Amino acid sequence: MKVNVKLEVQYDGTDFNGWQIQEGQTGSRTVQSELKQAVEKVVKEPIVLIGAGRTDAGVHARGQVANFITTKPIPEEKWIPALNSLLDGDIRVTAAEEVPLEFHAQHSALKKMYCYYILNSQYADVFLRRYTLHCTYPLDIESMSAAVESLKGRKDFRAFCASGSSVKSFERTIYQADIFYRGKLLVFRITADGFLYKMVRTVVGTLLEIGKGKQPPEWMESLIEGGERIKAGPTAPPQGLVLEKVWYVE
Amino acid sequence: MKVNVKLEVQYDGTDFNGWQIQEGQTGSRTVQSELKQAVEKVVKEPIVLIGAGRTDAGVHARGQVANFITTKPIPEEKWIPALNSLLDGDIRVTAAEEVPLEFHAQHSALKKMYCYYILNSQYADVFLRRYTLHCTYPLDIESMSAAVESLKGRKDFRAFCASGSSVKSFERTIYQADIFYRGKLLVFRITADGFLYKMVRTVVGTLLEIGKGKQPPEWMESLIEGGERIKAGPTAPPQGLVLEKVWYVE
Repeated sequence: MKVNVKLEVQYDGTDFNGWQIQEGQTGSRTVQSELKQAVEKVVKEPIVLIGAGRTDAGVHARGQVANFITTKPIPEEKWIPALNSLLDGDIRVTAAEEVPLEFHAQHSALKKMYCYYILNSQYADVFLRRYTLHCTYPLDIESMSAAVESLKGRKDFRAFCASGSSVKSFERTIYQADIFYRGKLLVFRITADGFLYKMVRTVVGTLLEIGKGKQPPEWMESLIEGGERIKAGPTAPPQGLVLEKVWYVE
Repeated sequence: MKVNVKLEVQYDGTDFNGWQIQEGQTGSRTVQSELKQAVEKVVKEPIVLIGAGRTDAGVHARGQVANFITTKPIPEEKWIPALNSLLDGDIRVTAAEEVPLEFHAQHSALKKMYCYYILNSQYADVFLRRYTLHCTYPLDIESMSAAVESLKGRKDFRAFCASGSSVKSFERTIYQADIFYRGKLLVFRITADGFLYKMVRTVVGTLLEIGKGKQPPEWMESLIEGGERIKAGPTAPPQGLVLEKVWYVE
């Protein structure tokens, strides 16, 4: 009998070469590879591990979702302790449940939320350096917020898609986007039905140019309309980015 | 002309073999060694770097204080950028000022505050694992708080002093000690005129035995009175401990 198991996974991406198994690149840690190996040790058969989002090297997750089908399941409540006992401390399984066989962590996903964390201060903070971008220059939050507004809705986001992507359509729907302070951290939060390759980091790089006053808030909208990646801001570094949550049909 | 420079220093102790330079142990990073090398690159002469507290391997600092005397000072406001540009990301100088020649980071210290951070939850948190102790068992905070009360005042704390120490007196004055929640973290905070070797971690190990219900709150007082290290709780692991602040005469 086949069982489909859905996992929620948290990881500190600092010491990983991203989510996805790198074919032929032995020696570089990936989250997918380590999690797949842990599952296979438990079920003692090869499995295919599907992830909701393929986070890049250095990007973190608080709510990544993965699934696999096995013919040798263990009791549902045993998955979390069994897998965590096999995983290094920088990956944790936080939830596990049996789901219908048709559930697919990537294709069934309705929307995803990412947050990007910025420490905007004169000096860096050693305890936050792995999980934030440190910006020493003053940022105009009002301009950045105005620019964020033009992201919302169904639009063609090819201006924020890095090369190396093979998607058919550059259209995505941004359901929610805002920028706010949480404690001393500036947070950019965005929820969409999907994201293009390095899209969030390119949007953040663009927002930072606006925050620094190098470009006006309207620049965001004109970039979307122009559709040329080369005109947008640089790709912000990975360590500020966290895949926070993935939603599915209940 | 000699100038005495006082530094405030923050570090993530995870990847350091503690504060103190280890004679003969090449290859192991220490905070004192890396900071001393950075200062010597700036002043281009050998210096002696004094630290307020010799934190152990894996222990962090948000407010360590150090000082050194040099005959080749740079302008006061240049110390922070000059030193930080030479240091790895897990050490940051957060303040620098010229002080009277008699200032000595260790001997002039009046009191020090340490905090110990505990994540008391079923599952670990990958983003906190380097900076907290993860406890899965339920903790009785009321019992722990009652035990903390008996720490206060001038007492002989030899029961909490690890072997390997060569101090003359085991008497210390605890000015303040409490235990409270900050967000989801349980924090034990203690301020004293000085601490014995591994004293805070042994006190925390003892508090955890009380929190688990293995011992009553009164155990703390009877340990202090008994003065035998072997009877106290185990030494709590280093990653929860942070040297928060050091006070000097204004």
